[in-house]
This record gives sequence, structure tokens and C-alpha cells, in this order.
Amino acid sequence: MRLISYRKDGKPGVGVMTSDDAFVALPLAAPDLPTNLRLILALPDWQVRVRRAVEGRKPDLRLDQVALDPLIIDPNAIWALALNFQSHINETGLTTSPDYPQIFLRHAKSQVGAGQPLLCPPPSVARAFDYEGELAVIIGRGGRYIPKEEAGKHIAGYSIYNEGSVREYQGHNRQFGLGKNFERSGSFGPWLMTPDEFGNPYDKHVMTRLQGKTRQRESLGNLIFNVEALIHYLSMGHNLRPGDVIVTGTPGALKPDPNDYEASVAAHVKGGVQYAGRVHMKPGDVVEVEIEGLGVLRNPVVADEAGYRPD
Amino acid sequence: MRLISYRKDGKPGVGVMTSDDAFVALPLAAPDLPTNLRLILALPDWQVRVRRAVEGRKPDLRLDQVALDPLIIDPNAIWALALNFQSHINETGLTTSPDYPQIFLRHAKSQVGAGQPLLCPPPSVARAFDYEGELAVIIGRGGRYIPKEEAGKHIAGYSIYNEGSVREYQGHNRQFGLGKNFERSGSFGPWLMTPDEFGNPYDKHVMTRLQGKTRQRESLGNLIFNVEALIHYLSMGHNLRPGDVIVTGTPGALKPDPNDYEASVAAHVKGGVQYAGRVHMKPGDVVEVEIEGLGVLRNPVVADEAGYRPD
Repeated sequence: MRLISYRKDGKPGVGVMTSDDAFVALPLAAPDLPTNLRLILALPDWQVRVRRAVEGRKPDLRLDQVALDPLIIDPNAIWALALNFQSHINETGLTTSPDYPQIFLRHAKSQVGAGQPLLCPPPSVARAFDYEGELAVIIGRGGRYIPKEEAGKHIAGYSIYNEGSVREYQGHNRQFGLGKNFERSGSFGPWLMTPDEFGNPYDKHVMTRLQGKTRQRESLGNLIFNVEALIHYLSMGHNLRPGDVIVTGTPGALKPDPNDYEASVAAHVKGGVQYAGRVHMKPGDVVEVEIEGLGVLRNPVVADEAGYRPD
Repeated sequence: MRLISYRKDGKPGVGVMTSDDAFVALPLAAPDLPTNLRLILALPDWQVRVRRAVEGRKPDLRLDQVALDPLIIDPNAIWALALNFQSHINETGLTTSPDYPQIFLRHAKSQVGAGQPLLCPPPSVARAFDYEGELAVIIGRGGRYIPKEEAGKHIAGYSIYNEGSVREYQGHNRQFGLGKNFERSGSFGPWLMTPDEFGNPYDKHVMTRLQGKTRQRESLGNLIFNVEALIHYLSMGHNLRPGDVIVTGTPGALKPDPNDYEASVAAHVKGGVQYAGRVHMKPGDVVEVEIEGLGVLRNPVVADEAGYRPD
């Protein structure tokens, strides 16, 4: 089952995909269910109720008739991982504990839905706006002190996150803070796929394309702290809640081909080893993150020129 | 004007203090206003409407008849400062950029209201649960690219934060992540005081008492990045929104007196200099943070033994 959060005529709704481009609208098919995905996931019997509502029903709408919201628009917490692939540790030259995951938070307004514009800061404010393709895990059943072997029972599903990062601000100080939380700098979607359909995450790949060129491609089997380890760790301090999001970390960039001028400019040598550089995102670009089964999270990049815009 | 967020018979409300222990309940005095402080602050004319509703009205309730919630129960973002007093930099021995503030995020469920129990992790999970007394700033009018000299216009008011920290987890890796976000580990309140009543923050002091003993006392004039600088900095990347919270950082601990066994055990020498140690919070303690005009943020500390408790 694949679920989306959408907005039509300003009204939020949750949909169930019937193909790659059409869906059953739960506000029509099951008006008794909440119109907010986090609140649906908080119902103990949500899977049964949603499956019953869509059974045998024809799609109500096509994706191109609605705007997609970030998959969870109002999570209590978005936990994000730093340096959770060896290839990313290598390219940054940074160190991280081998014993404990490195975790920071994003807030809900730092993200948009699939298809919505990512805002690139004006060059006068900050340089180096980077993609980070990642697997996102959405918590279903809440819990505390969850052993790794029980972690799967708490997963509502998987999705894709582009954990867009403003490197200049990220480097201002030791805590990432604002550099990971620029206005509409990240993206989350397009859909949540339930674990029964997604299968084993670790035989899938995460791929990022900028302007059609593949810039990241790595097996999710290479996650240093895997999904089960992260759920266990977080639950030691925090009541994981329905709709909590764990963004599992990004791999290093691929080695650019020799004719790739943009990437060769960004490439660098560290400790005698040549690393691929990140080609930054800029206004006019289209960025795509893909994970098998989870679809493609595609966003245009536009200049953030408008100043304050109330929600 | 002093505003609180409270809960009575499970229902949320916003109140306006008429003395240090009684208040007008806005759900009774102004049923057309939202029952959520963030939503009230989002109304452009909230000050006028709230003042009109309470004018000449007798208090409806006493503080001891309700439970206080965290002042803003559902902020979009709680921005918190690391190492924003020289005395705290000295006691930790950590370094921080002199040019840019060091910022991380807390999420809403990591905090409780005044009077509510703070949860101390079991020793088997984590050691070293520490108080951090701080000034909190609550944003009223939203904005972006806010110059320092305009920052004051965006402040709805001030309050107190006990930015409770689980040091063992905070030290797991470079990003603070979970160590600053344990379940109900921090506290926020008791009230928001508007800037016209609070006056100049920098001639006030923040004081923390544990079991009645003063452990922190420092002038808010010693903030390295002051309130206006923080509002300016955050607004460069983020649309500051009504109800956003900025927790401005904690000072170092006071030098303990020679007969203070607990503190002398915690004290340490670094670079030939004797620093006061933090006396950790433990179940059974009462912790208080006070700032002149903002009242006392008092919380009992209890053992977190219950495992998962849904909200």
C-alpha cells in the first residue's frame, strides 16, 4: 500500500495510490478517517480501515490534479542522521563515533512535498546548497525501549527524503542548526510504502540525479547504523510516536566521469585520495532522488527571493 | 501582560495573570480567541484583543486549580543555543565560533510545563541529567531577513527555559541530537511576559537553584549573541513564525562553597583552573530557574520508569 499527503483547493487529504499516477482520495472514500497522515497512523487499526476503504474502488484523482505535501506535514520530530555511510565520511573528511549514531533534528517547515519548489538561498546569503538523497522511515506504532528485533513492528512505512543542506551555514559552528533547516530546503515524499510491499530495504539503492546526471548511487545495505539500530537508539531516550520520521543519512557522491566539468571543479584530493565533489543545486535545476519501489522524489530548484511568506 | 498555557479537565486554554497566582481564563473571557497560545500570537491584533477581554475582569481561576503546559505546546521550531556564555565555555572546555551562534533544535515533547515532573533517565540508560537555566524568547510577528534594530518588533515576549540535558547521550557524538531531546527532560514557563513589562533583558539575571541551593547566577548582559543578534541570524535562513521559541543559552555553574560536598565532588581542574562542577539532577529533587519579572520555573524531578506512555 502506498499513501500520499496532498492538498487540493487548499484542503489537506490523504490518498492511496492505485497506480503510479492516480489515487483513491480518503476524504471521499472514508470521510470518518482524519485528513492528516500522522493522525491516521496513530489509529491502531489504520491499515485495516484504509484497506477496507479503498477495496475495489476506482481512483478519484490523478497526481497531476493535486499538490503533494511533505508526507508528514506536522511530525513531532524529524530525526536526521549525519555521516551514516562510509563513502560520505570519506568525502567530507569528518569523523564520527563508531559506537553511536550522529543525530540532529529538522523542523517541519524546512521541507516541501514532491514536485514543490526547493528554495535556493540567494548567493548574498549563503553558498553551496546541496542535495542529500536518503531513505526515510515513518514510525507507526509508538514505543520506548524498543529492542532491535522488535523495531520492525513500529515501522508504518518507508519513503524518500532529499535532506537539502546549506553548507555555508552548516559550517558556521559545531552544531548544524540552521544550515540543515533553511526554509523549504528539503523534500519528503512522494509516498509512504508499507513494509510488506517494500520488502528488505538493504537490497535497494538510493540514487540522486541532478539535471538528469546521476550524482549518488549506493546500496542501502551500506548504512552504518541501520533502521533497526536507529529505532532502538532513539527509543532509549524518546517515546517514538506515530508519524515520527527518521532520515537515515546520505552516501558520498559518485566519482565524476572525466568530461564532467562541473564535478571536476568540485572534486578535491584529501590524504592523497581523489574524492568526487558535490555539484551544488542552483535555481533552474531539477533534482531527483529515487529508491526502488519508493518512486522518484523530484523537485525543481528556484531562487528564494521573496523574503517572508506567511504559511 | 503575562500569559500562560494551561490545561483544566484535559482541555487546553490560555490565561492572563492578574496576580502571581490567579488569572483570567480566555476561554471564558474571550471564547472567540483560539485556546492555543501559538495561534493567538499569530493574530496581528492579539495584544489589543487580549487586553480588551481581560479589562476590569476578575480572575477566573488560580494557578493551583490547573496544570501548566509548556508555554508554547506546538511550536514550529525550538531553536536552542550552545555555549552562549563565556562562563559555560570555560567550564566545558569546548570551543565555539566567535563569529556565529551555535544552534540546535529541541522538539515539543522534550519539554513540560512549570510544576510538571521532569523525567530523570534510569541509571541503566544514562547518567548525568543536568539543569540549564535560560532566557526564552517567543516570536510574535513572523519575519525574514530581520535587521538587529528591527528584531524587537518580532518579540511577543520572554519566558524561562530549563534546557534539561542528558550529558551521557549528548556526548555520544558531535551533534547533540538525542541528549538534548530526552522525553520530558526540559521545562518551559511559567508565563510569557510582554516586552513592555519585562523591560531590558540585559540588566536581569538568570538563577538556577537545585534543592534550594543556588547553582547558577549570571547577568543576561553576558550573553555572547544577544536576543537581537539571534533573531537576525535565524531569520537569514528561516521564516521566523509566531510561536517560534529561541532558548538563548546557559551560563556556567557557580563556584561551590568549600563545605558543599556534592559540588566539590563534581568540580574539576582544567588548564590549571578550578571550575565548579554541575551537580546533576536526580529523582526527588526540585529544580528552580528564576529570572526577575519572569517568575520561577519550578519542577520536581522523578524517575522515568514507566516506559512508553502515549500522549
